[in-house]
Amino acid sequence: MIRFEEELTQLQNHLLEMAGHVKKSIHLSMQCLLDRDESLIPGVLADEDRINQLEIRIDSLATRLVALNQPVAADMRLIIAALKINTDLERMGDLALSIAHRAGELIRMPPLEPFVPVFDQATLVEAMVELSITAFVDRNADLAHQVLLSDDKVDLLRNQIYESLAARMEADGNAVRRALLLLFIARNLERIADHATNVAEDIIFLVRGIDVRHRNEHF
Amino acid sequence: MIRFEEELTQLQNHLLEMAGHVKKSIHLSMQCLLDRDESLIPGVLADEDRINQLEIRIDSLATRLVALNQPVAADMRLIIAALKINTDLERMGDLALSIAHRAGELIRMPPLEPFVPVFDQATLVEAMVELSITAFVDRNADLAHQVLLSDDKVDLLRNQIYESLAARMEADGNAVRRALLLLFIARNLERIADHATNVAEDIIFLVRGIDVRHRNEHF
Repeated sequence: MIRFEEELTQLQNHLLEMAGHVKKSIHLSMQCLLDRDESLIPGVLADEDRINQLEIRIDSLATRLVALNQPVAADMRLIIAALKINTDLERMGDLALSIAHRAGELIRMPPLEPFVPVFDQATLVEAMVELSITAFVDRNADLAHQVLLSDDKVDLLRNQIYESLAARMEADGNAVRRALLLLFIARNLERIADHATNVAEDIIFLVRGIDVRHRNEHF
Repeated sequence: MIRFEEELTQLQNHLLEMAGHVKKSIHLSMQCLLDRDESLIPGVLADEDRINQLEIRIDSLATRLVALNQPVAADMRLIIAALKINTDLERMGDLALSIAHRAGELIRMPPLEPFVPVFDQATLVEAMVELSITAFVDRNADLAHQVLLSDDKVDLLRNQIYESLAARMEADGNAVRRALLLLFIARNLERIADHATNVAEDIIFLVRGIDVRHRNEHF
């Protein structure tokens, strides 16, 4: 039984490490865009690699835990939550990599005026990733609720970014390609926020047994 | 043990039903766009509702199955695959709904020339959803491989659609809003294809024990 507890802790530590890499790769990708510094991209690729290794390790660890220990219902719910969080974190890693590639493309073009709201969005999204995983480790539904509130802010920023970039494209055909890349970066950030929200919802379910999914769909 | 098999079959039938609703809602959304017929949208909303109900049902059925039966490793892998497929199908439902909303917005604007590749993409994606769930029910890794091949076609079409819509926006500021909506519809379809690909990869892992994830990342 001690062994089971240890492996459960290991599972959580892996998820924590994954979340750390996700945060770091969002940060590096946006820094690459801000500083127009392509040399930051290999760091994102290294994070992505590690995230993918961890995903596979967590899946097999969780499957083994269940198969060998026949956990009680509460532990089982925890392991299923870990599996879901694993999938969400891996997708976040993919999205961060996608931001890095788009940033890499953008900085090879003449600079567009800095769109500050995109960087605000990134800061908010990084905090959501951190908060959601802390909520999991601490089994803290209140922290998880804060993630849901941040997601509403991300959606507001998304609308603002969409409006200003669409207007920019309408006004100047030469800005279309760059504005599209920036718009896709903003959408990647928004999708990372959605995954952090999924994690938060899973934690609320885990802690309180309330299913808060489908309370507020994203269109 | 008969009860366990029955419940496992029920789990699969729920996933099949979900996949049916996903396919139908993609189809209705695209039909709404093609026929400029807003009356098709409530059908998509009804599908989405049912998909969400099924998602919650499948999660609780799977959790109960594991907690009460302590399944052997092979059954455990099957149940974990079912849980992942469940999540993917639910996201596909969300994306189909998002297509419906964008189609609804588009048809309130003056018509843009029909972008045939978007409809080709939708047909391909519907077939991928069907194929991936059949591959699961039949435990057929070859069918699952076909899904991976289709995903490459979807990515090619995506590039073609992106190019022609970006050029359209560069040429005519008045087309920007409509071209953006169409571009987002194309991206929603591509994301549905990615989820069908996730399902296919899970099935290959389930049947052959080979992990084909991260073989070909989407940027």
